[in-house]
Amino acid sequence: MRQSQMFIPTLRETPTEAESLSHRLMLKSGMIKQLARGIYAYLPITQLVLNNIQDIVREEMMNIGGAEVHLPVLHPRELWEESGRWEAYGKELMRIRDRHDREFALGPTHEEVITSLVRDELKSYKKLPLTLFQIQTKFRDELRPRFGLLRGREFIMKDAYSFHIDEDSLDKTYRDMYDAYSRIFTRLDLNYRAVEADGGSIGGSHTHEFMALADIGEDTIVYTDESSYAANIEKAECTPPKERSTEEMLETEKISTPDIGTVKELADFLDTDLTLTTKTMVVKTDDGLKMIVIRGDQELNDVKVKAYFDTEMIDMAADEEITAELNAAPGSLGPVGSPIPVYLDYQVEAMRNYPVGANETGYHLLNVNHERDFEAAGTGDFRFINEGETVADGSGPAKFMRGIEVGQVFKLGTKYSEAMDFNVLDQNGRAKPVLMGCYGIGISRVLSAIVESHHDDKGIYWPKSVTPFDIHLITANTKDETITGTAAEIYDILSKNHRVLYDDRNERAGVKFADSELIGLPVRIVVGRGAKDGIVEVKGRLDEESAEVRITDLTSYLADNDYA
Amino acid sequence: MRQSQMFIPTLRETPTEAESLSHRLMLKSGMIKQLARGIYAYLPITQLVLNNIQDIVREEMMNIGGAEVHLPVLHPRELWEESGRWEAYGKELMRIRDRHDREFALGPTHEEVITSLVRDELKSYKKLPLTLFQIQTKFRDELRPRFGLLRGREFIMKDAYSFHIDEDSLDKTYRDMYDAYSRIFTRLDLNYRAVEADGGSIGGSHTHEFMALADIGEDTIVYTDESSYAANIEKAECTPPKERSTEEMLETEKISTPDIGTVKELADFLDTDLTLTTKTMVVKTDDGLKMIVIRGDQELNDVKVKAYFDTEMIDMAADEEITAELNAAPGSLGPVGSPIPVYLDYQVEAMRNYPVGANETGYHLLNVNHERDFEAAGTGDFRFINEGETVADGSGPAKFMRGIEVGQVFKLGTKYSEAMDFNVLDQNGRAKPVLMGCYGIGISRVLSAIVESHHDDKGIYWPKSVTPFDIHLITANTKDETITGTAAEIYDILSKNHRVLYDDRNERAGVKFADSELIGLPVRIVVGRGAKDGIVEVKGRLDEESAEVRITDLTSYLADNDYA
Repeated sequence: MRQSQMFIPTLRETPTEAESLSHRLMLKSGMIKQLARGIYAYLPITQLVLNNIQDIVREEMMNIGGAEVHLPVLHPRELWEESGRWEAYGKELMRIRDRHDREFALGPTHEEVITSLVRDELKSYKKLPLTLFQIQTKFRDELRPRFGLLRGREFIMKDAYSFHIDEDSLDKTYRDMYDAYSRIFTRLDLNYRAVEADGGSIGGSHTHEFMALADIGEDTIVYTDESSYAANIEKAECTPPKERSTEEMLETEKISTPDIGTVKELADFLDTDLTLTTKTMVVKTDDGLKMIVIRGDQELNDVKVKAYFDTEMIDMAADEEITAELNAAPGSLGPVGSPIPVYLDYQVEAMRNYPVGANETGYHLLNVNHERDFEAAGTGDFRFINEGETVADGSGPAKFMRGIEVGQVFKLGTKYSEAMDFNVLDQNGRAKPVLMGCYGIGISRVLSAIVESHHDDKGIYWPKSVTPFDIHLITANTKDETITGTAAEIYDILSKNHRVLYDDRNERAGVKFADSELIGLPVRIVVGRGAKDGIVEVKGRLDEESAEVRITDLTSYLADNDYA
Repeated sequence: MRQSQMFIPTLRETPTEAESLSHRLMLKSGMIKQLARGIYAYLPITQLVLNNIQDIVREEMMNIGGAEVHLPVLHPRELWEESGRWEAYGKELMRIRDRHDREFALGPTHEEVITSLVRDELKSYKKLPLTLFQIQTKFRDELRPRFGLLRGREFIMKDAYSFHIDEDSLDKTYRDMYDAYSRIFTRLDLNYRAVEADGGSIGGSHTHEFMALADIGEDTIVYTDESSYAANIEKAECTPPKERSTEEMLETEKISTPDIGTVKELADFLDTDLTLTTKTMVVKTDDGLKMIVIRGDQELNDVKVKAYFDTEMIDMAADEEITAELNAAPGSLGPVGSPIPVYLDYQVEAMRNYPVGANETGYHLLNVNHERDFEAAGTGDFRFINEGETVADGSGPAKFMRGIEVGQVFKLGTKYSEAMDFNVLDQNGRAKPVLMGCYGIGISRVLSAIVESHHDDKGIYWPKSVTPFDIHLITANTKDETITGTAAEIYDILSKNHRVLYDDRNERAGVKFADSELIGLPVRIVVGRGAKDGIVEVKGRLDEESAEVRITDLTSYLADNDYA
């Protein structure tokens, strides 16, 4: 394609409003333009890359037996009421009324629509399993759209949904998807990790996130160099301490602590280490208030608490609620004599003679011991893991890194089939709710993730699998007929087997070279003064120097150097 | 692909709610499912066909130098206010508010967005011409969605926009587009005509519609067998009569016609032919009321009237307005003594001694003659053409047919560039508004048009260019291992070079055959009892009989018969 026919409005200056590297590079290389906050137009280079990404995703989905569909953007309110998400989804769900005053959502995800679509048609286990996927524009009214395509309000997703009669079948498709995702991200040349992630109230190992490593990543991934272990920090398990304190139990003592509101103040007051103190927290769950005691230096992990209590609702109890129920200020709470159930983090369970609030405002108890002084209703893992701790598979110390979530696979179980009355007859003629899985890839996010990891100080360099063109052919001077004639000939020849971007613009060579490095095609061929002697200059995007190549040798040179 | 993995919910019964043949067939063959009025899910067969259609469209757009983009669905209100269409578009424009109460339109077309996108980047004629296109879901809140995908509220469009410094450049791209559209519709195997269409107030030959012939078509096309002439009836020119009446002018006579309200009643009362009478109509334009006189047997053509007066607004005057201005009831109007300008249709201009209303309720004038009895402000073509009349190029008698609009090419001129302040510097350094063209293809409409014209009483038959699969491979009996083994082998071999749908379902042969004819792949291969002797049955979708073919000869047989 002739560059004069493309629309690639590169910038000379680095745009200052961009908040991430990929955002800056995509603006600078003329790939995207913002129309409104979090809403972007994809210009020709972007569209070519997106088409390539989509082809790879489509191919791998079909390889595991997925059938492609295209579902509506407009979702009737009634469907989202069936699942209960019309209310629950909140302000991120964009809502619209049609001319007859009927309400619709702009689809941010398609569980409701796909379930309503197949439940009328699939009545027997014989039609299962089934995997449907689509690639489509989705909408989410983010409170703070940012980082360009990384967190937009209008974005492109591949979403897939699978339907099963039993867990074994769901497991198989889940594994197929996991493997397909691994192939996809490998083909896209992303440095990724599949990590255990929070699956909301479903919990367990029912979901994995595929994270592309990047400094801009909004998620923290816990990994270790000793094994393939990786998990989102929200999910990364802390192992119970191997050793328990064997200290002799000392006598409990009640002390006055009128000015102490935080655990830090308590440790200072007692002149002891934070690791020897405890924090008592009260959370609200579907099943009422629960008290949780963790070590003083640790942070409570909401996601783990939510999964532990298998609760939809999870919130810190308000001060009024605490005072009403426990008759003490939040800074003086403790497990001894608590009227609500007490749960201990594994670390606290291994401790002895620790301080706790006295459940009396302005007082603490020292040398408290569970079992002797109070009974815990349960113990568990309620905190975030720290760098250096041994990871859950026991293989080595935890390290942290940042990642961009580019995909997620998820076992939904019967959540939607039960809410939306989707049953099939099993082998014994009994109606059974269908098991479902859902599997997403953020296509426009993937694009950003590729840019985040494929650039140098001059611009982008595209992986061959998604590059918008194979070859950048450039005339150094459009006034010289030998040069333009030679370039046109080379263009015709190379176009037979390659996708060539031919910079025929009447611009200075320096401008063309700078644009070329910004755009980042794998190889650049410059037709300049050497043309009269049958010579052109060839340079791989990451090469330091260009090579002089005889035009007659050009095709074999490109092949030999694996340029195109 | 294995049919057990596809989702093709065919119906045994013909759905009664469907209003068009393509709608019925697409429901019956499991291609689409309605989610809400005018909003459909596209199931796997449909998606495969759509991907093929889109590939053809994309290829032809790129062949004429178009660059693909992807523009947002959400359009800020401010942009549509710049063009004046936020108000003008009416209820068909779907509108939404985000969480910050900002208003957006769901894009039904992208003139505003594309103009705002390029105006900041294109500052010089040197960057022109430029053609950008996209393939995207669009939204139009139709008052009466119907005919399945033919008139939906959410639909897929290819839209292209071109930008030019002068008319010559616009003309060239317009012709390139016209030719590309012709190639596209030919490749899609549509029987189509490119017709002159109404271009709204731009008028002239600035727009052509591409109409696919089909009985369900909502448009009437005027054509002739004698030439390539074709036009939408709204636009088809009527030629002025060659002969003018040479009757002697008779004396005007005023008669009482108290019970006469229609021209039919007048003709009966005068015992004369309708063709010798006239009708007087009053229309409201931007420039006030206008009186138009046409022959009594003809129908007024709004679109022509609108173009004639170059008016945005066109409406029949209300009775009160007529009475207020002309002091007579609508049934008694006439040009003699009219206080508003009078325009004659060409046919009336050729008449003499005709009756008209007297502009006095309950009275008519006989033997009226223009020039003698009143002065016309103008003459023109204000009516619809009739079958049998000579068409505008003079080549032969007009014939009518019905068609589905599948594409339109349109010279916008400077309408949007002027409204939205989009200028470039020309060769002389002067700012000039950019000339624009826009070019649409209704991708999901095209799909319906193909089905409307490719079916028999058993189902669809797909053109090879868009067929979802090349070959339908069917096992007649899934319990017979020779059959299933042979089919699996054939599937593996044929899949190397063809897209094969392999019906491996445990269904009766009759069900599979009926489904196969509904789905309509070009050729069907049945593996049945003959398998043990190395024989299968091959039948082209439109063949009456199937042929027995040795499996060893299968590939060459398919090629020789041009089946796949």
